Formats: sequence, structure tokens, C-alpha cells
Amino acid sequence: MNSKIDFIQMRNIKVRQIEDILQEYLPRQRGYQKVIMEAMAYSLLAGGKRLRPMMMKETFHLFQGRSKAIRPFMAAIEMIHTYSLVHDDLPAMDDDDYRRGRKTTHIVYGEDMGILAGDALLNYAFETAFKAFVTEPEDSLLIGRALGVLGEKAGIYGMIGGQVIDVKNSGHVVEREVLDTIYELKTSALIEAAMMIGAILGGASEEEVKIVEQIARNVGIAFQIQDDILDVTSTSEVLGKPVHSDEKNEKTTYVTLFGVEKAAQVVEERSKKASMLLQGLPGENAFLEELLVQLVHRDR
Amino acid sequence: MNSKIDFIQMRNIKVRQIEDILQEYLPRQRGYQKVIMEAMAYSLLAGGKRLRPMMMKETFHLFQGRSKAIRPFMAAIEMIHTYSLVHDDLPAMDDDDYRRGRKTTHIVYGEDMGILAGDALLNYAFETAFKAFVTEPEDSLLIGRALGVLGEKAGIYGMIGGQVIDVKNSGHVVEREVLDTIYELKTSALIEAAMMIGAILGGASEEEVKIVEQIARNVGIAFQIQDDILDVTSTSEVLGKPVHSDEKNEKTTYVTLFGVEKAAQVVEERSKKASMLLQGLPGENAFLEELLVQLVHRDR
Repeated sequence: MNSKIDFIQMRNIKVRQIEDILQEYLPRQRGYQKVIMEAMAYSLLAGGKRLRPMMMKETFHLFQGRSKAIRPFMAAIEMIHTYSLVHDDLPAMDDDDYRRGRKTTHIVYGEDMGILAGDALLNYAFETAFKAFVTEPEDSLLIGRALGVLGEKAGIYGMIGGQVIDVKNSGHVVEREVLDTIYELKTSALIEAAMMIGAILGGASEEEVKIVEQIARNVGIAFQIQDDILDVTSTSEVLGKPVHSDEKNEKTTYVTLFGVEKAAQVVEERSKKASMLLQGLPGENAFLEELLVQLVHRDR
Repeated sequence: MNSKIDFIQMRNIKVRQIEDILQEYLPRQRGYQKVIMEAMAYSLLAGGKRLRPMMMKETFHLFQGRSKAIRPFMAAIEMIHTYSLVHDDLPAMDDDDYRRGRKTTHIVYGEDMGILAGDALLNYAFETAFKAFVTEPEDSLLIGRALGVLGEKAGIYGMIGGQVIDVKNSGHVVEREVLDTIYELKTSALIEAAMMIGAILGGASEEEVKIVEQIARNVGIAFQIQDDILDVTSTSEVLGKPVHSDEKNEKTTYVTLFGVEKAAQVVEERSKKASMLLQGLPGENAFLEELLVQLVHRDR
């Protein structure tokens, strides 16, 4: 990587490529149920870092992957991430009217359509991934393995499980062990799925997939702790969202438990661990190395 | 089938076998997120006819199926049916406090857990189906085809799509064409998936799977119209739920559009069509033949 500018340019190009893939796999808007396709597109095309498909693709490149099955899986994981945001924003959950400066899906389409749009995105994520069987039947076994990872990391042993623990503990002080579980499930699990699926479809061995899982877990947890830090050290102008929200919501975070300095130290350790593990893998991907560092040390 | 009594006895045995399979595939209740596993079990084990897994299994037998992949798919389709009920009952949707005489999931576990339990069941349905890749890897291609059907029939081109059209038209009089689409998507689609997956995993040809889809569509629509009829001709004691609910909710049905007599005639025609198509298939399954007739002519 020549400079940070080059990295940002490359990253922007990659984001646009991912958004082209999302467009390609979104359902055509037709039929009496057209409104639900509109709501899906509204939430899926609302911007964002597109981190999960990006990490999937870059891990796939690390293993010199060639299978076209990667494309539907990139779309699928972003759909799963998006449905989780749509349902999180509902009145019975976080009750948020805005996300990234736009009205949330249930505000625009109504609460009933907010629930159904989330359901539709989750279901359609799997439908999209299943298209890989049709276009790449010779990769059926790999696709089956990738689906197993996607399902597990998105469900009760992954993201949904983390969301449940988070909701059930909101307003209480939680112990570090519980907090670690929330971070690991709610934030890391889907990042783990992204990188592991990239590795699996890229032809990585089972052992390599396990190392990739460890890399992603360290990055995911560091990413979440950095979020906690920025909530107290940044400004709403830089972040583009309110700061000091954790304090307001009486949320236990790494910062409330250990202070900013100790929290920053954990971010550094986790980040180093991830980079070290990545360097131990065969293959090279300078963009991925830089991406993992930038994610964790971001200022917004 | 010797008599109606024998049929009922066999059907009860089959329901118990299906409930054993559901128990087997339900997640163990453990971890900080234990409450969500409880809510999943609460909704999934709330009784019911277990129609969809039963029709899947019987269609599988019709084609002399042998693959053990059928078991996780039987559990998966009942999980999808159940999640749709859990989300339908939410305050922003039908706002129902009771189902089959028991409190609904969000009443017992709270609205946030009601949303998450539905999400969890949908996700876990696919996770469960993916287990077939691990236990029956040699059937990967068939499993991939079965998944394609499950995803499509459960999603925006199937059950979710029907639910969207139904919600969007509630309180209006709708035309027959829209009503047919609602019945086809909201009720028939998952019955189609059940029978088609039974056929696919049973080794049916593509043409046979298409005939099975037609059988299921006719049965599903007849089943729904019979529901409309019972709502005006039966009593709440027999049905175990309030009658005249369609009138109260100003719902357009086959009965409000055409009257009871004409509606009953359509049920008869659809049912005969299904039986005829079934008889045209190779193989025999007297229980399935009887089941399709009973479903459509049931009095509760």
C-alpha cells in the first residue's frame, strides 16, 4: 500500500463494486407485494461501510479463490446484517427513527412492513446464497459448508444470541464475561462468518478456516471496543451520530468497566493478534492487512 | 384405508413421530441466551396439525424416498410455519394474545423477544436444513434443490409476499384476482414447498415435482376456502376459535365474494383436481390420498 490515500481510493472502488452486486441480487420490484421489495431496497441501499462483504471478498482473494459462488454470498451476508438493523430499530427494540441520517424502514413503511421487510431480507439472504447451487453446482459441497457457517453465525449461537443477551441486560451493569459474550456474538459472529465463508469458498483447509475465525473474532471485538471509545472521545460532527449515547442509555461497555486507556490497550492487543495470525497464513493481501488495521484504529 | 377411525389413529401416530423430530432438532437450552431457546420451544411445541411436515413425509414415501435428509427438512418447514405465526401475532400485525388457547409468544416473553424468537426460528429452520449436508453429503445436489424451493416458497415470492398483500389490503374489499394471489402465496406456498421437497428428496423427476406443486396448490387453496366456510357455518365450540371473525375484521373471502354454496363448489373442484393429479403419479400412498380429502372436507 503506497499511502493512506491509495487505500481509501481502493476501498471506495470496492464499496461501489459491492453495491453493484447488491443491486444485481435485489429482487425486481413487481407484483402486488411490490412494497416489500421497495422496503428491502430502501434499507439495503442506505449506504454503510459494506464491511462484511468486503472482508469476505478479500479473504477469498487471500486464498486465490476462483469460484463465482462468492458473489451471492457477499450479497447474502449484507442482507443479513441489514435485516438485523431493520429489526433493531423497531419500536419494541431500540425504537430509532433515524439511521445514518435517513428515516428508518418502519418509519417510512410502517411498523408491520418493518417487521416483514426484516423477515424478507433474512429469508432472501438465504434464497440468494442458494443461487450458488444453480450457477456453480460443481461447488455444492463447499457451498453447503459455507451455508452451515452463515446459518450458525447469524442465529442463536451467533448474532441473534448476542442481540438477545444485549436486550435482556440493557439497563443493568454486566460482568466482563457477559460483555465479552455480547461482543463476540452480536458484533464478531457475522464478521467471522464473512471471513470464514471467503476462506471456505476460496479453498482454504479446515485448519486455515479456524485461524481465519480467530482473526475475525479479534478484529470484531476490537472494532466494537473502538466503538465504545469513540462514543466518549469523539464528537457528533465527526461520528455522524450522537456521542455519549452509552452513558445516556446506562450501557455497560469496555470503557465504563475499565476506562478509555485500558480499553484502547485491549484494542491494540486484539489488533496485533489479528495481524500476527494473518501473517502466519499462506498468501498475501496487502489491502486486507491494511483494512483490518484501519477498522480497528478508525476515528469514526 | 379400512375406516375413518384407522386413519385418525394413524394420523395421531404420525403427529407424535413429527413432534419427536421437532424435539430432536430444537436447540438445547443453554448459555446466556437461554431465554430465546425457551421461547422457540414454547411456540414450536404449542400443538397444531403438523400438516406441512406430514405432507412432506407422505409425498417422500409416495416416491419411495430413502434419504435421511428428509428429517431436518421436516423440522425446518414446521419452524418456518411457526415463526410466521409468532410474527403474525405481534401487536403491529394481528395483535393476538391467544393462539390455540395458549398465550402467544410475545405475551409470555415480551414483544422484543417475540420479534427475536421469530427471527431465531426462521434462521434456525435454515440451520436445521443445512445439517442435511453434514449427515448426507452424497445427497448435496438434491439438498441444494430442496433448499431452493424452501427459500422461494417461504419468501417474498411465497408466504411473506402473501402476508404483505394480505396486510396491505386488510379492511378493503379486494378483487378475486388479488384474493387468489393471497391464498396462493400466504397459504399454499408453504404446502407446495412441503410436498415438493418430499418429492425432490424422494427422487422424483422435475416433471413429477411440477405435478406435485399443482396438487399442493389445489389442496392449499381448497384448505383456505374451507377455512372461510367454517368461519360462517361452524360454532366456536367445534372450531376452538371465534367464528364470524372475517365479518368482524371486514375481510374479503371466497364466502363474502361468492357465498357459501359457490365457495363449497370451488373446494370440491380443487379437491377433485388434486386427487386426480395424485392418481396420475406413479406410486401409491393411501394415507396421503385420504389426508388430502380430509384436509379439505374437515369440519374444524
